[in-house]
Amino acid sequence: MISRHYGELYGSVDYSSDITVQLVDKYGGDWLICDAARVSTNGSDGAGPRELTDRDRGLLNTLVKQRHGAPFQHGGLTLFVEAPIFVFREWRTHRVYMHQATDDMSYSEQSARYRGGNPKFWIPRSDRALIKGYGWKPMTPNYEVPAVDQHEDIVEAMIQAYGSSWCEYKNLTDALNVAPEVARALLGVGMYSSMFVSTNPRSLSHFLSLRTHDDGAAFVSYPQAEIEEAARYAEEIFAEYWPETYKCWNDWGRYSL
Amino acid sequence: MISRHYGELYGSVDYSSDITVQLVDKYGGDWLICDAARVSTNGSDGAGPRELTDRDRGLLNTLVKQRHGAPFQHGGLTLFVEAPIFVFREWRTHRVYMHQATDDMSYSEQSARYRGGNPKFWIPRSDRALIKGYGWKPMTPNYEVPAVDQHEDIVEAMIQAYGSSWCEYKNLTDALNVAPEVARALLGVGMYSSMFVSTNPRSLSHFLSLRTHDDGAAFVSYPQAEIEEAARYAEEIFAEYWPETYKCWNDWGRYSL
Amino acid sequence: MISRHYGELYGSVDYSSDITVQLVDKYGGDWLICDAARVSTNGSDGAGPRELTDRDRGLLNTLVKQRHGAPFQHGGLTLFVEAPIFVFREWRTHRVYMHQATDDMSYSEQSARYRGGNPKFWIPRSDRALIKGYGWKPMTPNYEVPAVDQHEDIVEAMIQAYGSSWCEYKNLTDALNVAPEVARALLGVGMYSSMFVSTNPRSLSHFLSLRTHDDGAAFVSYPQAEIEEAARYAEEIFAEYWPETYKCWNDWGRYSL
Amino acid sequence: MISRHYGELYGSVDYSSDITVQLVDKYGGDWLICDAARVSTNGSDGAGPRELTDRDRGLLNTLVKQRHGAPFQHGGLTLFVEAPIFVFREWRTHRVYMHQATDDMSYSEQSARYRGGNPKFWIPRSDRALIKGYGWKPMTPNYEVPAVDQHEDIVEAMIQAYGSSWCEYKNLTDALNVAPEVARALLGVGMYSSMFVSTNPRSLSHFLSLRTHDDGAAFVSYPQAEIEEAARYAEEIFAEYWPETYKCWNDWGRYSL
Repeated sequence: MISRHYGELYGSVDYSSDITVQLVDKYGGDWLICDAARVSTNGSDGAGPRELTDRDRGLLNTLVKQRHGAPFQHGGLTLFVEAPIFVFREWRTHRVYMHQATDDMSYSEQSARYRGGNPKFWIPRSDRALIKGYGWKPMTPNYEVPAVDQHEDIVEAMIQAYGSSWCEYKNLTDALNVAPEVARALLGVGMYSSMFVSTNPRSLSHFLSLRTHDDGAAFVSYPQAEIEEAARYAEEIFAEYWPETYKCWNDWGRYSL
Repeated sequence: MISRHYGELYGSVDYSSDITVQLVDKYGGDWLICDAARVSTNGSDGAGPRELTDRDRGLLNTLVKQRHGAPFQHGGLTLFVEAPIFVFREWRTHRVYMHQATDDMSYSEQSARYRGGNPKFWIPRSDRALIKGYGWKPMTPNYEVPAVDQHEDIVEAMIQAYGSSWCEYKNLTDALNVAPEVARALLGVGMYSSMFVSTNPRSLSHFLSLRTHDDGAAFVSYPQAEIEEAARYAEEIFAEYWPETYKCWNDWGRYSL
Repeated sequence: MISRHYGELYGSVDYSSDITVQLVDKYGGDWLICDAARVSTNGSDGAGPRELTDRDRGLLNTLVKQRHGAPFQHGGLTLFVEAPIFVFREWRTHRVYMHQATDDMSYSEQSARYRGGNPKFWIPRSDRALIKGYGWKPMTPNYEVPAVDQHEDIVEAMIQAYGSSWCEYKNLTDALNVAPEVARALLGVGMYSSMFVSTNPRSLSHFLSLRTHDDGAAFVSYPQAEIEEAARYAEEIFAEYWPETYKCWNDWGRYSL
Repeated sequence: MISRHYGELYGSVDYSSDITVQLVDKYGGDWLICDAARVSTNGSDGAGPRELTDRDRGLLNTLVKQRHGAPFQHGGLTLFVEAPIFVFREWRTHRVYMHQATDDMSYSEQSARYRGGNPKFWIPRSDRALIKGYGWKPMTPNYEVPAVDQHEDIVEAMIQAYGSSWCEYKNLTDALNVAPEVARALLGVGMYSSMFVSTNPRSLSHFLSLRTHDDGAAFVSYPQAEIEEAARYAEEIFAEYWPETYKCWNDWGRYSL
């Protein structure tokens, strides 16, 4: 992270490449999905958490293989996410020209209208492919990793632009008494924000199938690198708390459950 | 519960008035709603479960009073429900001529197509008001509790009808080899079924506001007695695990959060 | 349709195999899907209905092939449906042990609580395969068409059971003054009901992918014959008003858009 | 609208206060809501468009008064919207610290990832209250209209900041060959975008109840001026095509249907 100080009126601004995804709380697990599935067929008594059995593992495999998704809506988790606004714009949106993003996500996001601007902006990592390659086209883009000095020039140019927008924002709100809800219009979509996201295993798998790139997937997605980074962190949480569901989902083409 | 045996081919049938709603698992609580609300304004670090403070209680009161519902979508629970089909038809449906039923409920229900009919049917309790009162009209119904012998006659008539439908169902499936998915057409909506329902505090409050009758509510609902019984059990679970949210919701007119 | 008269108190009852699906109103079409897709990439001016071009046809093919579903949510239609309750139970539900049913359908259904019972019940057509075949199992059922006299016996048995339930229902509501909401518990899920369903092309395609059986489909579904009949009628309406979308959907495996 | 030219590399940029909301297509109307409501009680034959009767007007009034919202989900419309990103961020989001935004809206929005940046940025109108007033606080803001020269200074300061961000964006993408999906991080949320929104009368009423300020409303909302402007244009469309529903909604406190 790079910090720059712009004087007393404007304060300090941080420039970062970090994206945070953190588990706040969760319930359910592989067992709950099995019990919910069995209520339809063999019956289930609605008892609580229990160890997974081999029959459960077989059942999960069948559910994923035959695309019986409803049981995967039982269970839930809340994530805390810190990332640039353009990542949130994608996360909270039906992705452009791709499958539907799930609708079973609930969001509470930081408000630039009420909390004001956040002096923290995103810059690309040095290994982020971002130079247009040979034959690049808008709808079929290909990118290369920049040379070290290229990366430094780009980051410095971004910091210049972010920094002067930030100073103008502070000038408007603090010197000219302008409403933050108006002045924020100047702040780039690279500004960091934070949110709580609540979802269930099924919707999470849908999100992951769209926002991760995996050559072995039944349908290969091409997400932007930053939302993929966020998605990979969420995938680790999925794998930890729904290990058998995760394994089957991965085995059967990472398709939306 | 009353049991009747109909011979070897038809087996035994149970007649019951019981409705079961049981917590399977849950996560979150009043604290998570507060943390989700604060991410928008003061910020929140996404840490996990913690004790509730007085400031949290004040915040919950403000959220309910000013109808800021989004934070109540963070958290979740799964219920196991056993009740007659006509209760499930209402639960899973936008209620007729009333407010919308919430869309944030996920269901897995017993399948009469695959599991076959369930030899268990609903009969009214003896204190269930069900005799049309003076001035009764379809859209403005009023009912009185039957006398003891009236109740007995009604229950006996219902058992007769249920019993002969059941025997005909068994005759079709077992003697005439008819598909259960066809024969089940005879079975009344008073047959018991079971399901898993997963939802969040906000949607649960919506369900409760529509399916319980409370003269102190801002909008008074007139649910059928059996779904109200189920809703009252769900309300107890809500009050136990989200006590402060429940208190505010009740204080401010039991309106949908 | 067969009619039986049960005397002055009980009235007449109709026994039918008919299922009705009728277009009430609609908007949009293939052109609107194309315009909505282009707003993301080349831009669109939001003008109204227009003729379809060859470029539009190519775009629709690409959208379906590459599974870009969001544009198919623009446009809408309302259907009037008359069918037995067990069809509505499936229509309005996440199907057991299968893919999710779409959530973007809005329903207004006849109320047995307020309108009372409907003296019309479903019986199977004579060519409906319903006799359990060799090796039948609950989860892998196979059925054969009954002989003429077998079919007649089954229909007569069903009419007997329906008829006596109906007479008991009328006895309870009219002679014993029992609440229709209680007495209706006796009426079988084969009773006819009616509803309005509003949805969009994407959700409709999802419904059709689950409720029709097509050996050429990417994922083959095994719906009950009666809901498939309803779905086939809805499919004709889809094909008439979204002909190019329908063609692409069919060509690319009838997968949910 | 103000235009500035920044030389051959950077091109021209427009600065505007305009917000556009335009009807693309629609179906249904007051009559469809009435027919959908009647299917639950008196029955409806599912016939198509027809003239509204006095009984229909009485029914609509009762539906709104008694909060029977489901029938208002039948019917639909698609809007084309052109507005700054911060308006879309609010439109597509559960509003911070307020009631839920409706979930029954489908969106297709311009992609800065694929279409690149849009050389058009928002500036406030001269009569837009935006100077912090006496006693201003973040959660209870009050604003005053600026003096003419104050407004000019603010607009000029915004144009400076937008203009230099735009030139840096063009420098990155065109001179340094940087990916538009990276360079766009610099562009402010005041940049214009466009989208198609499809919804139904009920969800539209919900949106309007949250995004318009009306002192006579049952629950008074405090939306940002720019989304209110968009909402007022949508309200005109609602009033034109659902006149009787609109009238009842307005008469009964502009509450979400």
